[in-house]
Amino acid sequence: MPADQDAAPTATLSEGPDAFGFEVTLSRGRARLGVLTTPHGRVLTPAFVAVGTQATVKSLAPEAVMATGTQLIFANTYHLYLRPGADVVAAHGGLHRFMNFPRPMLTDSGGFQVFSLGASLEHGVGKVASIFPGEATRAPKPSGKGLVKVREDGVEFRSHVDGSTHLFTPERSIGLQRQLGADIVLAFDECTSPLHDEAYTEASMERTHRWAVRSLEAFAGSAPLHGYRQALYGIVQGGAFRRLRERSAAFVASLPFDGIAVGGNLGKGHDEMNQVLDWTEPLLPPEKPRHLLGIGDVAGVFAAVERGMDTFDCVMPTRSARSGALLTLTGDGGEASAKRGVNARHRINIYNARFARDLRPVEEGCDCYTCAHYTRAYLRHLFKADEQLGQQLATVHNLRFMARLLERIREALAEDRFAELKREVLGA
Amino acid sequence: MPADQDAAPTATLSEGPDAFGFEVTLSRGRARLGVLTTPHGRVLTPAFVAVGTQATVKSLAPEAVMATGTQLIFANTYHLYLRPGADVVAAHGGLHRFMNFPRPMLTDSGGFQVFSLGASLEHGVGKVASIFPGEATRAPKPSGKGLVKVREDGVEFRSHVDGSTHLFTPERSIGLQRQLGADIVLAFDECTSPLHDEAYTEASMERTHRWAVRSLEAFAGSAPLHGYRQALYGIVQGGAFRRLRERSAAFVASLPFDGIAVGGNLGKGHDEMNQVLDWTEPLLPPEKPRHLLGIGDVAGVFAAVERGMDTFDCVMPTRSARSGALLTLTGDGGEASAKRGVNARHRINIYNARFARDLRPVEEGCDCYTCAHYTRAYLRHLFKADEQLGQQLATVHNLRFMARLLERIREALAEDRFAELKREVLGA
Repeated sequence: MPADQDAAPTATLSEGPDAFGFEVTLSRGRARLGVLTTPHGRVLTPAFVAVGTQATVKSLAPEAVMATGTQLIFANTYHLYLRPGADVVAAHGGLHRFMNFPRPMLTDSGGFQVFSLGASLEHGVGKVASIFPGEATRAPKPSGKGLVKVREDGVEFRSHVDGSTHLFTPERSIGLQRQLGADIVLAFDECTSPLHDEAYTEASMERTHRWAVRSLEAFAGSAPLHGYRQALYGIVQGGAFRRLRERSAAFVASLPFDGIAVGGNLGKGHDEMNQVLDWTEPLLPPEKPRHLLGIGDVAGVFAAVERGMDTFDCVMPTRSARSGALLTLTGDGGEASAKRGVNARHRINIYNARFARDLRPVEEGCDCYTCAHYTRAYLRHLFKADEQLGQQLATVHNLRFMARLLERIREALAEDRFAELKREVLGA
Repeated sequence: MPADQDAAPTATLSEGPDAFGFEVTLSRGRARLGVLTTPHGRVLTPAFVAVGTQATVKSLAPEAVMATGTQLIFANTYHLYLRPGADVVAAHGGLHRFMNFPRPMLTDSGGFQVFSLGASLEHGVGKVASIFPGEATRAPKPSGKGLVKVREDGVEFRSHVDGSTHLFTPERSIGLQRQLGADIVLAFDECTSPLHDEAYTEASMERTHRWAVRSLEAFAGSAPLHGYRQALYGIVQGGAFRRLRERSAAFVASLPFDGIAVGGNLGKGHDEMNQVLDWTEPLLPPEKPRHLLGIGDVAGVFAAVERGMDTFDCVMPTRSARSGALLTLTGDGGEASAKRGVNARHRINIYNARFARDLRPVEEGCDCYTCAHYTRAYLRHLFKADEQLGQQLATVHNLRFMARLLERIREALAEDRFAELKREVLGA
C-alpha cells in the first residue's frame, strides 16, 4: 500500500455484528495508520491494548477505562476458565456483557500462561527479561514445580487457584474463547522463554504450527455463541532465532487467519525485540492486522510502530500505576533518572517525599480525569495511606498517558513527522 | 414546631459562602424533616453521612460517591493531622479541594480516636458493642498499650502511623479543623467506652464540658481560612447513664453551638441506644440540627430518626461493602438470616456459592450503577478473584442503599406513614 499523505484514517468497512476487517489507511515506511473494524466498534491503529486479565481492568470501572481513550482491552482465557468459568461468562452473553465493556476485546488462547506459570515462575524470567527488571518475578511463586506438561495434543497444567489438573488443547481453547466471546481470539500456542535453546524452541514452534492448523479447523467448525462474528489471529513464534522466526512468520502468513500476532520470547531487550520484528514483519501479509503480544513501554511502542505493528498489549501501564509509578513524558528528570535507564525517564514514583506538598497535577498538560482534579500531594497521600483510590487515579492517568501517546503517534504518522516525535519523546 | 402535613421540605435560608442554617420543615412526633444549609450546598434531613476518614470514601472517586445520592461526608481530623498533615490540606484550600468533593463535609474533633485507639483497642469493645459483633476488634491492635493519656489540658497520644507523641487540646483541634475546612466541625471531647464506670464517665463528661467552652472560645477567636463560614457542633456525652446524659444534654444545649452531636458510649445495643436518645433528645433545642455519631445500621437509622436525630454517620455500609456484605431490604431471607439477627436480615454475603451463576442484580429495583450494570455472579467473581472493582461496586450499592433508605424515610415522614415504612423494612 503506497503512502498517501492526504488519506484520512477513515474506514470503508461496514459495521454491525458481522463486521470484522482491517484497512491500512496510510503507510510510512513499515509503519502504518489503520482502522480495525469489529462487532463492538472501530479501533484506530496503532493502538495500545489495556489488560483486563480477570474481566476487569484492575481497579477501574469500564466507564473510567473508556474515558481514558482506551479503545480495546485484553482478557485472559486461562484465568477466566479457572474462575469464574467460561460457562458463567457465556451465560451472561459473553465478556462484554459480563463485565459491562461495550468496546472491542481480545482474549489470548491460554498458551501464554503455559509460559508465565511454567518457565517464568520456575526460572524467574519475563518475556523481555531486561526491560522491566523485577517485574517478572512479582507473581506469587507456587510452592511446587512442574505445573505444566506440554504434550502433542495440548498442555496439561495445574490451576494456580486450587491446584487441580486441566488440559488445554487447540480445540478446547477455541471452544472456551467462543464462550468468552471476545471480538478477536488467538490460536493456541506455546510461548517459549529466553531460557529455551534453539532445539527446544524449534520443536515447540513446529508443535505450535500444528496447533495453529487445529485452531483454524476448530474455529471454522464452530459458530459464534453470542450473535456476532469473532476473528481469529495466528501467532508467530520462534524465539530470538532468525531462522525460526522467518519460518514461523511465513507459515502463519500462509494460513487464512484474520490477523497475526507476534508472540513468544522477544529476546533480552529492545535491540533483540527489534531484530525479531525486523525478521518477522517483511513476511507478514500487509493487509492483515498485526498484534504484538506483551509490549507497552514507551520505547517499545515506538519500536513496534515503526516496525509495522498495529496493536500491542502490556500490563506495564496498569501494573506500574498500582505500585505508584506514574507515566510522564518528562519522568523524574535529571541525573537520577538518567542513571535508572530508559524507563525511569518516563515515570515518577509518587511515594517520593518531594511530592508531599506538590500542588501540581501528575503531568502538566495531561487531559486525564486525575490530572484535571487532583494534585501530586493528594495522590501521594492516598498511596501512603494505602487507599484504593490512589491506584484508581494512577491507573486512569497511565492509561490516558498511553492513549495520548498513541494519539500523538497516529497524528505524527499522518503528518509525516514520526521520527521527530520519537526524538522528542525518547531523546536523542 | 407543630406538624404540618402540607409543608414541603424547602429552605428559606440563603446560600453562599456564609451560609449555615437549619430549618425544620415538618415534625412528626419527635421525628423531623429539615434542610441543612452549608457553604457547600444543602442537605435534606434526615440524612446518612458517609465516612471518608482519610479524605477519601474508601474505594470510590467523589463523583461515584455523589452519584449514589450521598449528600455529605465525614472525615477524621486525627488521621488527616497525622497524614498528610492539616497544613498540606490547607495549602490546597481545604478538604473539598484536596479531595475534589464539592458537597458539604464534617470533621470530627479527634476525640473519638482517643477512644478508638485507646480503650477500644485495649479492651476490644466498640461503640455499641453488640450491634456489629466483631467489628470493633478489626482495627490492628498496636503492640504496646497506653497509647493515650487524658489530661486536663487535652489528650496526649501516640501516632498509629509512626509511634510519635502528640498533644490534642480543644484549641489545637479547632485550629486543625480550621485548616481542614469542613463545613461542620466538632468540639473537642472524650468519648468514653461501655467499660468505663459511672464515676469515670462523669469526670470525663465534666472535662468534656470544660473543653466544649474552650472549643467555642477558640472557634470564636479564629477566622475561617478558606473563604467560607464553618459551623461548630457541641457534643453530648454521659455514657449510658441517665443522670449524666441529662446533665450533658442540658449543658451543651445552653451553649451557643450551631448544632449538637450525640456521642460517646451509646450502651450495649439498640435498646440502650434508644434510652440514651430518649433521655437526651427532649433537652435539645428543637431549632438546632442534631448529629448522631457512629450509627448507621438499618434498625439504628429508624430508631434515630424517630428520636429526632437529623444526621448520622457510620462506617458500616462502606466497611461491609469491602468485605462483600451487600445491603438489601430482603437480605439472605429465610431461616439462616433469622438466626443471624437483625443485621443479617439486611445483607447478603456475595462470596456465597449460591451467587456463582446468579444473573440478577444485587437488589431487584435498586437504581444504583452497580445494579444497573452488573450481576451477582460478576460481583462474586470480582470478590473471589480479589479484584478492587468488586469493593467499588459493592460500596456504590451500599451507599445508594443508605441514600434510598433515607429518601424513603423522608418521603414517609412527609406522607405521615413512617411507622408503616418501619414495619415494612424491619418486620413486625
